[in-house]
Amino acid sequence: MRHLTRLADIGPAGAASLIERARTIKRASPPPRFAGKILVLFFLAPSLRTRVSFQVAMLRAGGSAVVVEAGSGIWPLETRPLAVMNEDRVEHLEEAVGVLGRYGDALAVRAFATLESDPVDLEDPLVSACRDHSPVPVISMESAAEHPAQGLADLMTVIEAHGSPRGLPVMLRWAPHVKPLPKAVPHSFLLTAAALGCRVTVAAPEGFELPQAVLNQAREWARRGGGDVTTVHDPRALADRQAAFCVKSWGAAGFPATHPVAGRHADWMVDADWLALTPPDCILLHCLPLRRNVEIAQDVLKSPRCRIFDEAQNRIFVQQSALEWLWGLRP
Amino acid sequence: MRHLTRLADIGPAGAASLIERARTIKRASPPPRFAGKILVLFFLAPSLRTRVSFQVAMLRAGGSAVVVEAGSGIWPLETRPLAVMNEDRVEHLEEAVGVLGRYGDALAVRAFATLESDPVDLEDPLVSACRDHSPVPVISMESAAEHPAQGLADLMTVIEAHGSPRGLPVMLRWAPHVKPLPKAVPHSFLLTAAALGCRVTVAAPEGFELPQAVLNQAREWARRGGGDVTTVHDPRALADRQAAFCVKSWGAAGFPATHPVAGRHADWMVDADWLALTPPDCILLHCLPLRRNVEIAQDVLKSPRCRIFDEAQNRIFVQQSALEWLWGLRP
Amino acid sequence: MRHLTRLADIGPAGAASLIERARTIKRASPPPRFAGKILVLFFLAPSLRTRVSFQVAMLRAGGSAVVVEAGSGIWPLETRPLAVMNEDRVEHLEEAVGVLGRYGDALAVRAFATLESDPVDLEDPLVSACRDHSPVPVISMESAAEHPAQGLADLMTVIEAHGSPRGLPVMLRWAPHVKPLPKAVPHSFLLTAAALGCRVTVAAPEGFELPQAVLNQAREWARRGGGDVTTVHDPRALADRQAAFCVKSWGAAGFPATHPVAGRHADWMVDADWLALTPPDCILLHCLPLRRNVEIAQDVLKSPRCRIFDEAQNRIFVQQSALEWLWGLRP
Repeated sequence: MRHLTRLADIGPAGAASLIERARTIKRASPPPRFAGKILVLFFLAPSLRTRVSFQVAMLRAGGSAVVVEAGSGIWPLETRPLAVMNEDRVEHLEEAVGVLGRYGDALAVRAFATLESDPVDLEDPLVSACRDHSPVPVISMESAAEHPAQGLADLMTVIEAHGSPRGLPVMLRWAPHVKPLPKAVPHSFLLTAAALGCRVTVAAPEGFELPQAVLNQAREWARRGGGDVTTVHDPRALADRQAAFCVKSWGAAGFPATHPVAGRHADWMVDADWLALTPPDCILLHCLPLRRNVEIAQDVLKSPRCRIFDEAQNRIFVQQSALEWLWGLRP
Repeated sequence: MRHLTRLADIGPAGAASLIERARTIKRASPPPRFAGKILVLFFLAPSLRTRVSFQVAMLRAGGSAVVVEAGSGIWPLETRPLAVMNEDRVEHLEEAVGVLGRYGDALAVRAFATLESDPVDLEDPLVSACRDHSPVPVISMESAAEHPAQGLADLMTVIEAHGSPRGLPVMLRWAPHVKPLPKAVPHSFLLTAAALGCRVTVAAPEGFELPQAVLNQAREWARRGGGDVTTVHDPRALADRQAAFCVKSWGAAGFPATHPVAGRHADWMVDADWLALTPPDCILLHCLPLRRNVEIAQDVLKSPRCRIFDEAQNRIFVQQSALEWLWGLRP
Repeated sequence: MRHLTRLADIGPAGAASLIERARTIKRASPPPRFAGKILVLFFLAPSLRTRVSFQVAMLRAGGSAVVVEAGSGIWPLETRPLAVMNEDRVEHLEEAVGVLGRYGDALAVRAFATLESDPVDLEDPLVSACRDHSPVPVISMESAAEHPAQGLADLMTVIEAHGSPRGLPVMLRWAPHVKPLPKAVPHSFLLTAAALGCRVTVAAPEGFELPQAVLNQAREWARRGGGDVTTVHDPRALADRQAAFCVKSWGAAGFPATHPVAGRHADWMVDADWLALTPPDCILLHCLPLRRNVEIAQDVLKSPRCRIFDEAQNRIFVQQSALEWLWGLRP
């Protein structure tokens, strides 16, 4: 049974073909290939784009989605494997997943990082438990470790602007925020760009390095695909040679997540001066939601180089492509 | 691109033809004209009838609806245009609308009046921002200024009972409540009745006059259509000559909304004695939800002259008719 | 107009034929018999399985479901028949049901027991009000008195394991919990098993007897169908001769529900030792959600004799079967 919760589930070749198929779907609206199929969206964390884009991905292909949100209308869930459940959590995740897997043809799951431990978050305990206990395929809507649909939509948007990603210089660009954020999105941009052979620069202040395990995986994939991975600590370094920037905030290396970041590195905000450093065909990505005038200055969002809405829309197509793969419907 | 958030978007002629089409849809269930279409329902305020009736309007015509509720499962939204977003609101309304407009074929939006300033509420800042930033048509599910679908359903119900609305005497009848309520619904009843040429009486206690700008618009439309607009301060005045009453509470003129109304004008409650003043074929409308035994005495609701359920059901048909117009599907 | 909120609505013969039809539906996925139909799911209490399984029951047969949750996105509802509604509840249940009945082809309603009075709960005031005021059929998603869809799914699962239920020994087996729970589920297991002619044993500690009215109804149906109803106060009594156990906690006889039960009768937990007392083909049921290591020891859930996921899945088929009956679509 197929699952897609980490890019390694499809590997570099799978990432490329999945995006290729997504572009075909976008160009010519496909026939309703999901007729009769039900995707259960199971949220252990909140969502706007992901929730609506997965629903729309199903509906526009003739299928249906059913939304289940832990803590809103349903019971709070126990997730500890050996719990004596005599407190306020009335159902175990394993039973919930077992049941939902009898109702849907696949489960889409969202569970954020705890931000208490990088190694634990990278093991993805909740989504791993869903994989272990679901009788149907599981697809990630963002886990503690990765957000594969976002990374695939990001690179699809880059390919729409620049064609082949092989050897293309792209930057994962840290931005300031009022609180530490999970690293699933930066992980997935880095891993997907590397898997497609991009030359990836990760720009972040000292102390905000991504986990070594993720960098190592990215470097291996990049090397195989004709790219590489570089890290810099100056927001202006290498800005003049990029084809695309993915702007994203994330928490400092070294947890717990209470580490204060509010107001730190405010000069890393992306503004018009900084954008002027980059080539005129360089596009800007952000997964959203974004903090205006904290991460990105408001006027930058009006630039035609800002492709955040294309990027959000492409979520539909990569998710349709991923679901086709998950169900073995790929033509 | 068409939008429908104010009656002025369609004007008096559009209101008449939209209701005519709604009656046709009601008589003979239409073919699924919305097949493949997705309406995103975007709630910045709660709902029962509106939410379900818009979903049903789509489903019964072969389409789909996706519900998004700000503050429930999604991020709290920033709405101030120039905000430095360093507090608790994690996404700007403009980005949310930009994204949702890439996912749906139209956006239905609900945002209530703030009740802090009549002039500001009449400018409809939130729904206006949605119109400005949406790449697809926007339809109102009640804004700070108007609730066009409610007004159209109200007048459709009047026409079902009495035929042509031209010159028909109808009353917008204030009722007591425990707190000040928005004026979108009374505005829309008044404007729609006036646009269709009714002779409209607005009955409300002194101090509860509707805004002059709305009265002026209504008077102009009424004059053009063969009707007029009269205001009275006595609940019994002119009651003996009406064809229909729309019962509704609203806040006092002069804001802020903290103005206390609880218990005031309790004698304006609609009861059996008052109903006996009206002609035997005079029907009673209320948009719901209603406070029994505060706005309307319970036994009045059992009268065959009470048409609140027809009125609620007609929401489906005027909304289908409005969506056909919005998408250019009108036959 | 048909309703299904108590097993008496279909009676013993109806229960048998409804399960027979559900088994047919399960074996050969039926054509979309609910095309064009909308079921409104109206929740006055939370849900996971019931909500998703009713949605899936509609979707898999070509229909649609619309979810309405009181207190989440909609107005809090008044339920007292004669209330002067001058407090925080802004809509009366009767109006809400009247409106929703104009939008859907049937209403599915959930309203839990108050646990304040067995006799009042057995009268089912909220669901009875829904039946009285709905213009379309009402189906229960669990009421204060019964949970018919659960009882039917339970017995369908028993029949899948053992064939004909006539004379089959089955046990309703009380389990400990941290708080008093409603009795709708045990009532429905008992009544449905009795209606199908099982020999039912109710095992519960002293003080946890089910209401006499329910026992009397069950005994009458059992007698007519070739079965009987026995009560025991020892968890080991008669365990060695059962074909199936339905494990469930419920509150003590004698209300109000504040009666403390936490930690009481902890030795009634179902564990491997206890399971070893039962015959090797004896299956275990639980309606879920369940408290691991309080009601049932974790390792018991891994036994192939534990059929909780089949039981949950069978909810889909009995609900499709019930909706066919409700709408007169039975072949």
